[in-house]
Amino acid sequence: MTYCVGIKLNAGLVFLSDSRTNAGVDNISTFRKMIVYERRGDRFMVLLSAGNLSISQSVRELLQVEALREDPESDPITIWNATSMFDAARVLGETVRHVYDRDADALKNAGVEFNVNLIFGGQIRGEGMRLFQVYSAGNFIEATPETPYFQVGEYKYGKPVLDRVITPDTALDEAAKCALVSMDSTMKSNLSVGPPLDLVVYEANRFETDRIVCIDMHNPYYRMVHTSWGQKLREVFDSLEDPVWDDAHTDIPLMPIDGNTKPLKKITRPEEKLI
Amino acid sequence: MTYCVGIKLNAGLVFLSDSRTNAGVDNISTFRKMIVYERRGDRFMVLLSAGNLSISQSVRELLQVEALREDPESDPITIWNATSMFDAARVLGETVRHVYDRDADALKNAGVEFNVNLIFGGQIRGEGMRLFQVYSAGNFIEATPETPYFQVGEYKYGKPVLDRVITPDTALDEAAKCALVSMDSTMKSNLSVGPPLDLVVYEANRFETDRIVCIDMHNPYYRMVHTSWGQKLREVFDSLEDPVWDDAHTDIPLMPIDGNTKPLKKITRPEEKLI
Repeated sequence: MTYCVGIKLNAGLVFLSDSRTNAGVDNISTFRKMIVYERRGDRFMVLLSAGNLSISQSVRELLQVEALREDPESDPITIWNATSMFDAARVLGETVRHVYDRDADALKNAGVEFNVNLIFGGQIRGEGMRLFQVYSAGNFIEATPETPYFQVGEYKYGKPVLDRVITPDTALDEAAKCALVSMDSTMKSNLSVGPPLDLVVYEANRFETDRIVCIDMHNPYYRMVHTSWGQKLREVFDSLEDPVWDDAHTDIPLMPIDGNTKPLKKITRPEEKLI
Repeated sequence: MTYCVGIKLNAGLVFLSDSRTNAGVDNISTFRKMIVYERRGDRFMVLLSAGNLSISQSVRELLQVEALREDPESDPITIWNATSMFDAARVLGETVRHVYDRDADALKNAGVEFNVNLIFGGQIRGEGMRLFQVYSAGNFIEATPETPYFQVGEYKYGKPVLDRVITPDTALDEAAKCALVSMDSTMKSNLSVGPPLDLVVYEANRFETDRIVCIDMHNPYYRMVHTSWGQKLREVFDSLEDPVWDDAHTDIPLMPIDGNTKPLKKITRPEEKLI
């Protein structure tokens, strides 16, 4: 499987991807799922991919040369000459449809669904940063201040911490930390998501970045996050009071038990029991 | 959707279920998903159900009267005369198949999958406690010390805390707390899992329980768990150091960037940066 997350903040963009691919649990491989398109001073874009690897690799390959030809009078649009990230996302969507036209019938004949999920974000000189999620049909949605991040692949285990932490005002390195915690939770619960991890942090209006890192399990920062998060979660859990059972019955009936409704207890907090 | 969890500990059993059912987000209802079968001093059993509500309601109704007739010479086995939880689970599996025989074809014609997932646990005098997960085909698996819990329904959001906390030695009320934290994480991330919650705690070798409670969102204990867990998770997150970017390059190449491989940075912990 795969887990990728892209986050759009006022301060910049954060992208993180794992690199484990599997065709069944007996066939696990390492493939990088992040690609960076950069022309210094002009544009900076990152693509993260989940889904069928043959599709996402084709999309990445073709995206560099794909052109959107809408109007025979004007030049075709590519990701390298697009004047907005919206147009660049349209080129990406078109690339997905191009691969669909080429491969979908043959995949269907083999019983394989045409499945690809992409996160595409960045900044082109002249406008602000933008972040998109592109679907198998080539359609796409854009992140907003209310929902400033996208996930593709195995998203559930890593979603709660993003929901608790990320807002547009979150600092870049704090968001990078949050993405790594989110990835760590995912890797703990789903063996088909695995290292090394690719992390890119982009600062707004720079049109390039030098904060690109490949993180393996020996990375001291990742090791600290992994160990401390687990230990401290356990400490938080232990710090919550256990429930106390109270003899006062509540009025809400449980399901009939052996034909009869049984009176219920209440659970309360310890100090309330003492009152 | 649904979320139910059953936990088997040395000290007893814990069962927790939500009560939200939906047929699309525009059709949400409340149905209890827990039923207790108890004959004091003789047997205590709990059934939790997820999946198609018409199937699980039929299973619950028929389970009280279903009989396994294997040998025409001997009396049929029911959950009320079974001498082991294994036999009681076989009766439950047979009940699922009974409903399958009755409904599956008609459901298939309507494009509905025959989908039911059950957790069934308890104790019958003469043997220890046992906990089973029963599938749509009526087959089942049993919990072991290595995997002392089962979940059905929306299991992913609530799984990490169970994995971190639950072992066979966990105390009963601590496991109840853990189940409630697990449920709280699930309700936070999936709107189709919702209150009220049914919680049963069974102490080993009692063959009855008085720790049965229906918890709504006004319950002071649940409110404390909900609020404190969220606040303290955030405090733990804030207590982890942010990454620090180091100019030392690593050797692992990222994907080619605009045709060239870009040198990578390292991220380190703050104190290592200072060295």
